[in-house]
Amino acid sequence: MRTVFFVSESTGITAETVGHSLLSQFDSLDYEQVYMPYINTEARARALTQRMQEAADRDGVRPLVFSTMLDDDIREILKGGNCYFLELFEIFVEPLSQELGIPPSRKSGRSHAITKPSSYTKRIDAINFAMANDDGVRPDNFPRSDVVLTGVSRSGKTPTCLYLAIHYGLRAANYPITEEDFDRGGIPGPLIECRDKLFGLTIDAQRLQLIREERRPGSTYASLARCEADIRRAEAIFRRLQITVLNTTSQSIEEISTHILKAVKSKVE
Amino acid sequence: MRTVFFVSESTGITAETVGHSLLSQFDSLDYEQVYMPYINTEARARALTQRMQEAADRDGVRPLVFSTMLDDDIREILKGGNCYFLELFEIFVEPLSQELGIPPSRKSGRSHAITKPSSYTKRIDAINFAMANDDGVRPDNFPRSDVVLTGVSRSGKTPTCLYLAIHYGLRAANYPITEEDFDRGGIPGPLIECRDKLFGLTIDAQRLQLIREERRPGSTYASLARCEADIRRAEAIFRRLQITVLNTTSQSIEEISTHILKAVKSKVE
Repeated sequence: MRTVFFVSESTGITAETVGHSLLSQFDSLDYEQVYMPYINTEARARALTQRMQEAADRDGVRPLVFSTMLDDDIREILKGGNCYFLELFEIFVEPLSQELGIPPSRKSGRSHAITKPSSYTKRIDAINFAMANDDGVRPDNFPRSDVVLTGVSRSGKTPTCLYLAIHYGLRAANYPITEEDFDRGGIPGPLIECRDKLFGLTIDAQRLQLIREERRPGSTYASLARCEADIRRAEAIFRRLQITVLNTTSQSIEEISTHILKAVKSKVE
Repeated sequence: MRTVFFVSESTGITAETVGHSLLSQFDSLDYEQVYMPYINTEARARALTQRMQEAADRDGVRPLVFSTMLDDDIREILKGGNCYFLELFEIFVEPLSQELGIPPSRKSGRSHAITKPSSYTKRIDAINFAMANDDGVRPDNFPRSDVVLTGVSRSGKTPTCLYLAIHYGLRAANYPITEEDFDRGGIPGPLIECRDKLFGLTIDAQRLQLIREERRPGSTYASLARCEADIRRAEAIFRRLQITVLNTTSQSIEEISTHILKAVKSKVE
């Protein structure tokens, strides 16, 4: 067991993102993470070196520290701790400054602050849009959407819409394909009309069964037969619509969202 | 104007996060970003160098490329393009491997894949929880929440709850303080009972007015007087509850969420 600290003078989101990415290269590593945002005084830095020492004593090996720290004095204190220190930010600032011919501001906490109010507002609006257009409640809003997701109940539409909204400011709506649609036969009207920005989400039947079972234990809705039938019929609709289909069994919402973003952007360009 | 490419063989989320962080140090830089995930073949890399050249010709200056690329051959092709190339990942993998005594897997796309199903499921469950417990619909679920946010209508509760769920897998519910609560006087019961994990969100009246005005133009609800009164009365409740108050006017959902996460974690420890 090894302790890993993610350290920053502000949110630490960058340190955490890069740290996790790097650690994902070492499958067999067993680690416990400690998230340390807002280390913005020397006193806090010193308290943290204390915790590093405690971790080293407990683990029998010095902890890893992933840091994005612009303040030289605080960084030096951290580096002095009993740890393996990786500064992820400082190393690139100077070369980049040279290339750009602009001195860095050295202001901390810029990465995730509201530096561009218009794009921040766009993201918040997109979140509200996703909330108001979840679960097919407003197909009349599809024309105002950037993206529409469809799929059977519990195929991952809602989390993906929210991720697209929060991260990319995309106005994402979704439409669940239900028994009613199957019974009516044919393709649901709202989907045909927004085909050009429509994505189908699918999922393996066994995984779907587990998810539905947790929601409504012992129900017909959660039976494997019903899950298989729902997926088969939904996939038939996707084929007829000739839309991109993404499988949420093995792909995370980050991966699914990236595929969708890429497809949307390439249509815009 | 300068073009900035965020490039990766998988989602590119890490490249984008670090790239944005670094660029936020250069306030005056005017740039256009191009998001290039899934550059996982040599053909795609070559097509991208073509786009780099086009950007250089158009802008009159070579583009910046922020890359997280594990494949040596693809990286070499990209580096050969007309660009200023910053590899954000490779530089740390070998030293980290040395420190850990573990060879890197060199498998791409690990950063944002479902590598730990249990923590991924926890995040998805938390998103569903946030959706089902938005807007005070289920105060009886507060005991099952990790965090409860409160504040007046449009103070930023919903986006923050969703962010906490998506990123940290926290079960976040929220409770809007309304006219009804004010009329009843006293502190709403559901809030008193969950005081230990409760956070108050506030916002400047003028900002609130703008947001509400967009939602219900010309309404009493959106008037400045009403916004000021709502905020004043909500803040009086926060004071009586002695809870942490966060202002969403100037802080992003990432910053607010980090403060909340830190407070929650420090209570757990």
